[in-house]
Amino acid sequence: MGNTTTVAPGKHQALTAEELSLTDAYWRAANYLSVGQLYLRDNPLLKEPLKMEHIKKMQLGHWGTTPGQNFIYTHLNRVINKYDLNMIYVSGPGHGGPAVVANTYLEGTYSEVYPAITQDEEGLKKLFTQFSYPGGVSSHASPQVPGSIHEGGELGYSLSHSFGAALDNPSLIVACVVGDGEAETGPLATAWHSNKFLHPHNDGAVLPILHLNGYKISNPTVLARITHEELEQLFLGYGWHPLFVEGDDPAPMHQAMAAALDKAVTQILQIKKNKDITRPRWPMIILRSPKGWTGPQVVNGYQIEGNFRSHQIPLDVTATNGENHLLLLEQWMKSYNPAALFDEQGKLKPAIAALAPKGPRRMGANPHANGGMLMKRLRLPDYTQYAVDVRQPGVTGEGDVHVAGRFLRDAIRDNQHFRIFGPDETVSNKLEAVFEVTNRQWEAAIAPHDEFLAPGGRVMEMLSEHQCEGWLEGYLLTGRHGLFNCYEAFIHIVDSMFNQHAKWLKISSEVPWRREIPSLNILLTSTVWRQDHNGFTHQDPGFLDLVVNKKAAIVRVYLPPDANCLLSVMNHCLGSMHYVNVMVAGKHPSPQWLTMQEAIGHCARGISIWSWASNDQESDPDIVMACCGDVPTQETLAAVSILREQLPDLKIRVINVVDLLKLEKPSAHPHGLPDKDFDALFTTDKPIIFAFHGYPWLIHRLTYNRANNNNIHVRGYKEEGTVTTAFDMTVLNEMDRFHLVMDAIDRLPQTGSKGIYLKQQMQYKLVEHKQYICRYGEDMPEIRNWKWKY
Amino acid sequence: MGNTTTVAPGKHQALTAEELSLTDAYWRAANYLSVGQLYLRDNPLLKEPLKMEHIKKMQLGHWGTTPGQNFIYTHLNRVINKYDLNMIYVSGPGHGGPAVVANTYLEGTYSEVYPAITQDEEGLKKLFTQFSYPGGVSSHASPQVPGSIHEGGELGYSLSHSFGAALDNPSLIVACVVGDGEAETGPLATAWHSNKFLHPHNDGAVLPILHLNGYKISNPTVLARITHEELEQLFLGYGWHPLFVEGDDPAPMHQAMAAALDKAVTQILQIKKNKDITRPRWPMIILRSPKGWTGPQVVNGYQIEGNFRSHQIPLDVTATNGENHLLLLEQWMKSYNPAALFDEQGKLKPAIAALAPKGPRRMGANPHANGGMLMKRLRLPDYTQYAVDVRQPGVTGEGDVHVAGRFLRDAIRDNQHFRIFGPDETVSNKLEAVFEVTNRQWEAAIAPHDEFLAPGGRVMEMLSEHQCEGWLEGYLLTGRHGLFNCYEAFIHIVDSMFNQHAKWLKISSEVPWRREIPSLNILLTSTVWRQDHNGFTHQDPGFLDLVVNKKAAIVRVYLPPDANCLLSVMNHCLGSMHYVNVMVAGKHPSPQWLTMQEAIGHCARGISIWSWASNDQESDPDIVMACCGDVPTQETLAAVSILREQLPDLKIRVINVVDLLKLEKPSAHPHGLPDKDFDALFTTDKPIIFAFHGYPWLIHRLTYNRANNNNIHVRGYKEEGTVTTAFDMTVLNEMDRFHLVMDAIDRLPQTGSKGIYLKQQMQYKLVEHKQYICRYGEDMPEIRNWKWKY
Repeated sequence: MGNTTTVAPGKHQALTAEELSLTDAYWRAANYLSVGQLYLRDNPLLKEPLKMEHIKKMQLGHWGTTPGQNFIYTHLNRVINKYDLNMIYVSGPGHGGPAVVANTYLEGTYSEVYPAITQDEEGLKKLFTQFSYPGGVSSHASPQVPGSIHEGGELGYSLSHSFGAALDNPSLIVACVVGDGEAETGPLATAWHSNKFLHPHNDGAVLPILHLNGYKISNPTVLARITHEELEQLFLGYGWHPLFVEGDDPAPMHQAMAAALDKAVTQILQIKKNKDITRPRWPMIILRSPKGWTGPQVVNGYQIEGNFRSHQIPLDVTATNGENHLLLLEQWMKSYNPAALFDEQGKLKPAIAALAPKGPRRMGANPHANGGMLMKRLRLPDYTQYAVDVRQPGVTGEGDVHVAGRFLRDAIRDNQHFRIFGPDETVSNKLEAVFEVTNRQWEAAIAPHDEFLAPGGRVMEMLSEHQCEGWLEGYLLTGRHGLFNCYEAFIHIVDSMFNQHAKWLKISSEVPWRREIPSLNILLTSTVWRQDHNGFTHQDPGFLDLVVNKKAAIVRVYLPPDANCLLSVMNHCLGSMHYVNVMVAGKHPSPQWLTMQEAIGHCARGISIWSWASNDQESDPDIVMACCGDVPTQETLAAVSILREQLPDLKIRVINVVDLLKLEKPSAHPHGLPDKDFDALFTTDKPIIFAFHGYPWLIHRLTYNRANNNNIHVRGYKEEGTVTTAFDMTVLNEMDRFHLVMDAIDRLPQTGSKGIYLKQQMQYKLVEHKQYICRYGEDMPEIRNWKWKY
Repeated sequence: MGNTTTVAPGKHQALTAEELSLTDAYWRAANYLSVGQLYLRDNPLLKEPLKMEHIKKMQLGHWGTTPGQNFIYTHLNRVINKYDLNMIYVSGPGHGGPAVVANTYLEGTYSEVYPAITQDEEGLKKLFTQFSYPGGVSSHASPQVPGSIHEGGELGYSLSHSFGAALDNPSLIVACVVGDGEAETGPLATAWHSNKFLHPHNDGAVLPILHLNGYKISNPTVLARITHEELEQLFLGYGWHPLFVEGDDPAPMHQAMAAALDKAVTQILQIKKNKDITRPRWPMIILRSPKGWTGPQVVNGYQIEGNFRSHQIPLDVTATNGENHLLLLEQWMKSYNPAALFDEQGKLKPAIAALAPKGPRRMGANPHANGGMLMKRLRLPDYTQYAVDVRQPGVTGEGDVHVAGRFLRDAIRDNQHFRIFGPDETVSNKLEAVFEVTNRQWEAAIAPHDEFLAPGGRVMEMLSEHQCEGWLEGYLLTGRHGLFNCYEAFIHIVDSMFNQHAKWLKISSEVPWRREIPSLNILLTSTVWRQDHNGFTHQDPGFLDLVVNKKAAIVRVYLPPDANCLLSVMNHCLGSMHYVNVMVAGKHPSPQWLTMQEAIGHCARGISIWSWASNDQESDPDIVMACCGDVPTQETLAAVSILREQLPDLKIRVINVVDLLKLEKPSAHPHGLPDKDFDALFTTDKPIIFAFHGYPWLIHRLTYNRANNNNIHVRGYKEEGTVTTAFDMTVLNEMDRFHLVMDAIDRLPQTGSKGIYLKQQMQYKLVEHKQYICRYGEDMPEIRNWKWKY
C-alpha cells in the first residue's frame, strides 16, 4: 500500500520475442488503418503509388491520441486472452475515433455489425472512405462504433461513466483511457475519488490508464508538466496505486506495458479474491508516450511527433501543397509495413489476427457495451398501493416526493439493477424511506453517528452533480436502471452532460444494431418556489428550457401537481426506455387534488380539464385558468376560489398540465395534442391565464403556433426571489392568487364594476400581505389556512 | 519542498496568554452574533430570560460551517494586523452567511454601509431580525455582505474566483475557505491546479484554507474520511505545502491556527521576495474542526456538534417543541458569555474590538472586494482601424474572429488590466494575433517546441471551462476586464456559473454601496454550423436560450454577421459595465457584407433593413427575409439572390439582426424595439422567413406578442448534424438557401406556377447536392463559388 511501481522500459521481459513481434504487428496494423481513415478514399493497401485522387478532399479527424490508444487496445487484448477477462474499453479522448474503429475492425466486430465493411481490400476502402465523411461515420467514438459507451466528444466524463458501468457488474473490468487534456477538467479531476464508492466484491473494477501524451490542441497539459514526484503523490493521494509506463521506443514500451498490465490485472484479481473488503488501493497505469507516436517527425520545419501539432491532421495533403506531402504520407503509411500485416486480399494475416480475443470477449462485442442486450426490465411494485387518500380536493399532503419515496424504497428492495444517485440530497429531498431497505454505498471510513452508510448500498451520493450524472449514465448505458434526484437549480451543473447524453440517445436510436437502453430519469425537487434556507442562488427552473431543445423523440417533461400524479408519472418513467424523463415535484407539504384513479386518468391524458374545479359545464367558459406545477396549481385554484365566490356568474374552466409537451403540436413532439384537441381545451378565442412552474416564456415557445396563442397570458418565475415564504415567492413573481385574479379581470371587461372592485380588493390584499410578512416573518393566517372548498 | 508541517495543537505558543484570551473572546463574539442571527428577533443581549416572543417564527440558515469560519476570520484579522496584509476573504461555504455578517459587523464595516445597523443593542436587534427574513438579507455571503465577492450558494467556484482576484494584484492575498463538501465538486477539484497559472511576482497570492468539518447535509465528506497520509499526498501532488491544524479544544486550536498562519504568511512573503520565479510550492492550511463547533452537543439523543445534524438549524425552537429547546438555546448563547464581550449598550468591548484591522485593511472594507471602486476603464484602440475593406457585399473574409483578434491584440498591448481566458482554444478560435504581444501564463515546466508559453502572460488557458469562467469572474469582481473565448457547444459546461454570476450582478446592482463591475464578455465561436472535425457532439447553440431567461437588465446577446460588425460589437462590449455580453461569431472565411461605416450604423441600431439586398424600396414588400448570425445571413442572401433572379417581380425586404434582444418588446428588455418600429420593419401582415443561428423556437419566444407573430416562419438548428460540410449542415437543418426559397414560395401563393416550378428546381438542387457530396466529399462548385451579385 502506498508505494509506486515504475515499470521502466527494457527492464521487464513480459513478452517473448515472438509475442513482442506479433504485438507490435497488431499495433502497426491498427496505426495503418487509422492513418488510412484520416486520408484515403482509395488504394487502401498502397498497391500502387499514392496519388492525389486516392486522397480525401476534406481530411478531418484527430491523429494525436490515436497511436497511443491503439497501443493500449492491443495490450488490453493480450491480457483479456491471458486472464480470460470480461473487459470493455472507454475512450476518454474519444476524438481518437480512428483507433476504436480500427481495432474493432481488426478484431472482426466491425464487419459483423456493418457487413458491407468486409475484411478485404474493398472493405478497407469503404472503411477508410466513410470515416469523417459526409454520409459516413463520425470522427469520434460515437454510438456508431461497436464497443463504445462513451463518445468522448465533450471531455470530462470517461471515468464517471466507467465507474457507473462497473457498479453491480462484479466480473467486469472497465479499462478507461483518460487523456491528460481531459484530466484537466473539473468532472474528471473529482472522478478519481470514485474509488471510495466501489464495492470490491459486488461491483466490478475500473482500470484507469492516464495517457500522458503531453499536449492538448495547442498547449501542453498540466499533468505532463509537473514533476514525477508530484504526479505520483497526486495519484497516491487520490487513493490509487499508479504504475508508470514511460518512453517512446516501441519494443521496450511493449515490454513495459505488458508487464504493467500483468501487474494491474493481477492486483485487481487479488482484490476481488480478498475476503477483506476494506477500501483497496486499486491499480492504475500512467502511460507517458509521444503525441502522434510513429507519425511524421518534422514537417516544414515544425516538430510534429511528440508535439501539439500532431493533434488533428499532421500532414495537409491537398492539391496546393500537395506532392511533397503526398510522399511523406506514403512513407509514413509504409513505415508500418502493410505487406507484412495484410495479405494480398487485404485480410489481416492469421498469426496477427489470432491476438484478438474471441466472440464476446472482444471489447467491440462485449454485450455490456450495448447495454440493451443485457437489459432486464424493472419489477416495479404496484404504485397505486402508495396512493394518498384524497377524500376531497385540497387535503394537505405530506410532501409529494415523500410519498414517492416509499414507492422507490420498494423498487429498490425488488431490484438489484436499480440505483438512486444524488449529491447528498436524498434525505433533504425527502426520499429517506429508501434507507429502510438500503444504504449509501461508501468505502471510505465510517464513524459513529453516521447514518445509512455501508460498503454496499443502492444509493450513490457525492457532492458532485457531475459524478452523479456520470455514474448514472454509465449505469444506464450498460443496461441498468436509475434515478437522479437533484435540487432543481443545480441540475444546470450538468446541462452539458444532459446535452451529450440526449445526443447519444438520438444517434444510437438510428444505429440498427444498438438496443434501446433504460431512460435517464431526473427528479427535480427543492424547487424554485421553496428555497427557504437558501434564496435566490437556489432558484432556477430553466433546465426545462434546455431539455425541450433536444430531439423530441428523446425528451419528456412532467410536472405532477400532487403525490398521486407523481406516483403515476414515476411509475411510467421508470418503466420507459431510451428517453430523458424530467420530473419536477415538490417536497414540502402541499394540497392534494386527485384520487389515485383520477390521477391515473389525468396522467394518461397528460392534460385535462379539472371539471370539479370548473363551473363551465353547461356552457362555453368565459376564461380558462391553466396551471402546470404544484405551486402554480395551488395558486390557480386559490384564485379560482376567489373568482367563483366574488363573481359567481363567471364561467371558469380549470386546466392542469402534467405532461408539458402536450402543449406542442404533434408535428413538434410525439406527445403533442392535435389542434382540434388543444382548441377544445383552450378554446380558440377566450382568455387564458396560465400559471407555470418555470420561466413563463417557455409556454409561449411551446404554444406560439396554436390558434388561441395571442390570448395566452403566462405567469411564472421571472428571476425575482430571496429567502422568504413560499407564498411571498409567488407574490414577488406575480404568480400568486391575487395577481392571477387581477390578470383574469383585466381580460374580462364584462365583469364591469364588480371586477374593478375585486381588483382593488386584490391590491389591498397584496399590501396587507407585505405588511404582515415584514412584521411577523410568516404568511397571513388566511394564506396559511387556505383550503379549497368547492 | 515536498514536506508537510503538522501544527499539532498545544505544541506552539504563537499567542501570549492575553492574545489568546482576546482572540477567543473575538471568536466567541462572532459566534454569539451568528446564533443570534439564526434565532432572535428581540432581546439580543439576553438581558431578560429568553421567551418564545424573542424567537423568529421561521429559523432559516446554516450553523454548521459558521463557527469554523468565525475562527478563521478572527485569525486572519490577527495576521492582517501583524504583517499589515492586503487581504480579502472568500467564503467557499458561503451559506455560512452568519459568519461573514457577524465579522463585518464586529469590524465596523457593516454599520458603515448599513447605518441603520448600529453598534448597539438596537442595531443588534435589527442585525438579528433581518437575517434570512422576508425583506431582510440573504442567508449567504451574498452581494449584500461587504467584503464578499463570492456568494457560495452554488458550491465549487471559490478557489477559481480567488485566483482570478489575485491575478495582476501583486500585493493582494486572497484567503479562500474551501469547504470539504465543496471540495468534492469537479470545478473545485481541478481548481487546486491553479497554482500552475499564478505568477509569483506579478500576481498576488491565494491562501486556501481547506475546512474539514467532516460533513455535508447528511453525509460525511470524502476528504475527511481518507487517511491523513492520503490527504497529505493529495495536496503535495497538487503542488501545495499543506499545514495541518486539527482538533476541537479552543485554546490549543487558537495556538495552532496562529502558528500555522504565521508560517503560511511568512512563506508567502518569502516567495514574493525570492528572485527565482520557478513555480513555488505555495502554503495552504488544512483545518480539521468539528462541524457546528461550540454548538449544542446532544439534542433529543442525537449528536449535533461534530455531526451532519448541525448543518442548518441545530435546535428547532418552535412553539410545539418549545420550552425545552428555548432553554437549550439560552444556555448555548450564554456559553459565549456575552456580558464579557459586549457592554451594557451592546457595543463590543474596546479591548476585543481592537483586534480588528483598521480602515481598508478590514476584509469587509477592502476595496478589491467592491471591484468597481478600483475599476479603471480600458483604453481601447480605435476599432475602425482594423476594418475589413468591403468594396462590395459578399467579398470573402478571412474569418470574422480572426479580424477581431488584431483588435484584441492591441487591447492587450495597451492594458495591463485586461486578460483573455479560454480552454486551450485561443489559437483554434483564430485569435492567435494576441500572441504577437503576449503569451499564455504558465508556471509549469516549459519544453522545446512549446508555443506562446511564459511565466507571465495575459492569456489564461486550461482545459476546464469552469476554471476559465471562474478565473474571469474573480478578475471582473475585483474590477478588471476580460474576455472568455469558448467553443459554442461547450459553454453549456458553465451554464450554472453564468446563472450564478447573472444573479450576482442583478442583486449587486440593487445594493447601493456596490459599484458596477466590468461586464462578463463571452465570445462563442467554433459554432454549431462549422464542426468539420467533430460533428454532432460539438453542435449546440442553446446557451442563448439560457441567457435570455436571466434578468433583462443584465443580459445582452449579439450575433454580428461579419467582421466589421464584430469589431463594432466587441468594442462596445469591452467598454460596457455590469452586463453579461454574449457574442456569437464565426472563425472560418465567410462573406463580408458591410463597410465599417455601414457596420457602425447597423450595430448601433441592432437591427436594420439591408436595403442594398432588398428590392422593396418603392413599395411594401411581399415577403420579409430576416436573418441573424453569419451562416444564416449567407444562406438568406443566397436565397434572396435566387428569388430575385427567378421571380424578379417579387418585392423582398432583407432584415439583419445583430442585437438579438431588439426582437423583444421594450417592456421585456431595455433594447426591445417599440411595436411601431418592429411593425415598420417586419410589417403587420406579410410573411417573414427568419433564418436564425440557434434553435428556431427562441425567435418565437422573443416575438410571441408581436402583431405579425403568426406569420413568422423560423429556420434554425434542430439537432441534426454530423461531420459534414458547412453547407450540408444547413441542409440537414433545412436552413439552406434552397429550403429558404421553398419556404418563401409556400407563403407566396401569388407566385403561381412560376413559384411551383422554382420550388421543384430547389428540390432537384437538394438531391443534386446530396449526390455530389456523397460522391466527392465536398460541396458542389455552385455552392463553393457562390457570390452575392446585386
